[in-house]
Amino acid sequence: MNAEIICVGTEILLGNIVNTNAAFIASRLSGLGIACYNQCVVGDNMDRVIAQLAVSSERSDIVILCGGLGPTEDDMTKEAVAAFTKRRLIEDAESRRAIERFFENRGKTPTDNNWKQALLPRGAKAVPNANGTAPGIILETRKCKYILLPGPPVEMEAMFDTGIVPYLKELGNGTIFSQTVKIVGIGESRAESMIIDLIDGQTNPTIATYAKTSEVHIRVTASAESEKEAAKLVKPVVRELKKRFGGNVYSTKEEVTFEQSLVELLLSNDMTITCVESCTGGLVSAALVGVPGASDVFKSSFVTYSNKAKRKLAGVSKDTLDRYTAVSAQTAQEMAEGGAKAAGSDVCISVTGLAGPGGGTRKKPVGLVYIGCFVRGKVRVEEYHFSGDRNNVRMLAAKNALILARECILEYIDNK
Amino acid sequence: MNAEIICVGTEILLGNIVNTNAAFIASRLSGLGIACYNQCVVGDNMDRVIAQLAVSSERSDIVILCGGLGPTEDDMTKEAVAAFTKRRLIEDAESRRAIERFFENRGKTPTDNNWKQALLPRGAKAVPNANGTAPGIILETRKCKYILLPGPPVEMEAMFDTGIVPYLKELGNGTIFSQTVKIVGIGESRAESMIIDLIDGQTNPTIATYAKTSEVHIRVTASAESEKEAAKLVKPVVRELKKRFGGNVYSTKEEVTFEQSLVELLLSNDMTITCVESCTGGLVSAALVGVPGASDVFKSSFVTYSNKAKRKLAGVSKDTLDRYTAVSAQTAQEMAEGGAKAAGSDVCISVTGLAGPGGGTRKKPVGLVYIGCFVRGKVRVEEYHFSGDRNNVRMLAAKNALILARECILEYIDNK
Repeated sequence: MNAEIICVGTEILLGNIVNTNAAFIASRLSGLGIACYNQCVVGDNMDRVIAQLAVSSERSDIVILCGGLGPTEDDMTKEAVAAFTKRRLIEDAESRRAIERFFENRGKTPTDNNWKQALLPRGAKAVPNANGTAPGIILETRKCKYILLPGPPVEMEAMFDTGIVPYLKELGNGTIFSQTVKIVGIGESRAESMIIDLIDGQTNPTIATYAKTSEVHIRVTASAESEKEAAKLVKPVVRELKKRFGGNVYSTKEEVTFEQSLVELLLSNDMTITCVESCTGGLVSAALVGVPGASDVFKSSFVTYSNKAKRKLAGVSKDTLDRYTAVSAQTAQEMAEGGAKAAGSDVCISVTGLAGPGGGTRKKPVGLVYIGCFVRGKVRVEEYHFSGDRNNVRMLAAKNALILARECILEYIDNK
Repeated sequence: MNAEIICVGTEILLGNIVNTNAAFIASRLSGLGIACYNQCVVGDNMDRVIAQLAVSSERSDIVILCGGLGPTEDDMTKEAVAAFTKRRLIEDAESRRAIERFFENRGKTPTDNNWKQALLPRGAKAVPNANGTAPGIILETRKCKYILLPGPPVEMEAMFDTGIVPYLKELGNGTIFSQTVKIVGIGESRAESMIIDLIDGQTNPTIATYAKTSEVHIRVTASAESEKEAAKLVKPVVRELKKRFGGNVYSTKEEVTFEQSLVELLLSNDMTITCVESCTGGLVSAALVGVPGASDVFKSSFVTYSNKAKRKLAGVSKDTLDRYTAVSAQTAQEMAEGGAKAAGSDVCISVTGLAGPGGGTRKKPVGLVYIGCFVRGKVRVEEYHFSGDRNNVRMLAAKNALILARECILEYIDNK
């Protein structure tokens, strides 16, 4: 069984928005073990949607269309599917009531063109939309199954998980089960070389590595008659991966982000954390605060962008700044020490570097970043050279600061 | 003349990466006035790339392929184009020298499979790659023009702007010129309704609105024999838009971001800025530090996530926190006042709110955010209700904090 994704929207063709919908749907399909060989994008244009439907229906069992279900004139995905499959559009009573309720709950009145959204091609099934007025649509024909989804990600993603995933699971033969081993501190090619024997010998389960920003995810996927059997095939491989990557594995749970695992590590060791940031300007703190419940371990932090602020807020000495400059291991060290003291925290991350574009010299080029980490009295400072533009350097610095903090905390626990 | 984009890469089909390359190329094409009716994605698979080339070559004058030019076995975009156009691959001496230089500069030795990257289909032209080893390729056939680009965005984007844009400009008949009027503080539908008469009457120039996060961009595009003539058509429309949107327009320059315009506004009024952030956790500061040269107006800032930190670092009174709680207009006001004092800044932005997922009540629901802005002695506080998940609420809060700062600074200047 294979599927393909057609995103409908002139704004994607103009490059005004990035097509995150295709990535979301693709990752869900791959999680379900449904092959997807094609993605495409066409504009809000009846003839071109129909032309694409003709191509896609030939090569795919399931055609997923996303976008163009809105109330206005230029939304015509549903109309194109109806025309291509030669079906009339008929009002669906339940969808009409859902639209009425949607507006009632918001104390607003629908406009005339909203009722257009309750129309379905004859024989199709509506999929409820918890976050908007356009229902999704599933239409099965002899040749092909069509799934129509609204374009706004907040509507599409919720609908996909609640209404489409169960439908696709039922279509499949057998089940697949996958688990991801998430790693930091090792690059993708090194990680791959460490398990090349497992990858080469793979059939069921399969093993695949994916590089994220300063992370590597290794997905182990097995298929079997039941989920339980598939899980049984995955388990020993995950165990072997955990053995090989040891302390570099931060989680094997789908929903746990790296930042979340760090907050949990702090929490379970009864530690609080703060930051003193220069070039990252708040990105490290913001990443920690992004974790729900961070307030248990994070209370406050400082952005010390000027030298004066580094002295005043983090107690960096004038002598250190004069002798070694702001971008130095010495300054990073004093920032980490001073920040921990000022905030009364067990752990303090410091970041100081040259994000560019200007300000680089031969000795201290753009991309040079010092990251310090204080853990209960002991400080470690590391030197990094990041490439890319200002944004990228800052993003990589923030991520690697959190990774260094994890390492330092684990070291502390080991030596305790 | 129309173009289409084929991105080659199994990692896109699996949903492991978002296809930002397609968005980049699409926005460049639309900037050049080249119509693009189709985008598609196929995996690293010879047969399927060739099948897509057959479809695309029929309907498009220019076919742009991106990805699959690497040195390994599974990179076969070039081989597929050569096979489809029935051409042999021949080594390009200049590309071979470029690969040698690339490795020399890094003190490394190329591996055998790197030389594969110097091969071009007979009759094709290499496009230099400043950031990698795979040259781009331009191949003109009777039917169609093929442009092959490397997949890594840092290589592709630089190559596109220096090597491909000039080529496409030469192909075009006449020129197009466009300018964007960038607006904050007005939603897309209201902005559109304010200029519906201009949009309805448009032919040349055309007017289109695009919604960004809490911004609206209005692009005015004209085509003419020369760039000068096209610019002349655009000018009066831009003037009219600036008249209608007044102070809501923050820039008409392509390269100026909203954050940059705010830093420039501060700079030209000789003002410094700081922030006291709770739920945004550093996002506002990080956005300011993201602007090159921000150090002239931004020196330091505070993340005060706990009540204790709000008291200690921003001087919020215990009484205020007890009576009104941390998420209140009163607390936002004192945070803004206290932060300005602590940092010695002319302007201080404060943000306190409930980002969720937990912690909401009927009176204070998740999404409720108070933003304060202090400008030389005067504070304004606004209440916001944002929707979406924790991440979205925080992102919207950070953006709207910067927008409120702009408004308050403009008010201050007006009343001076």
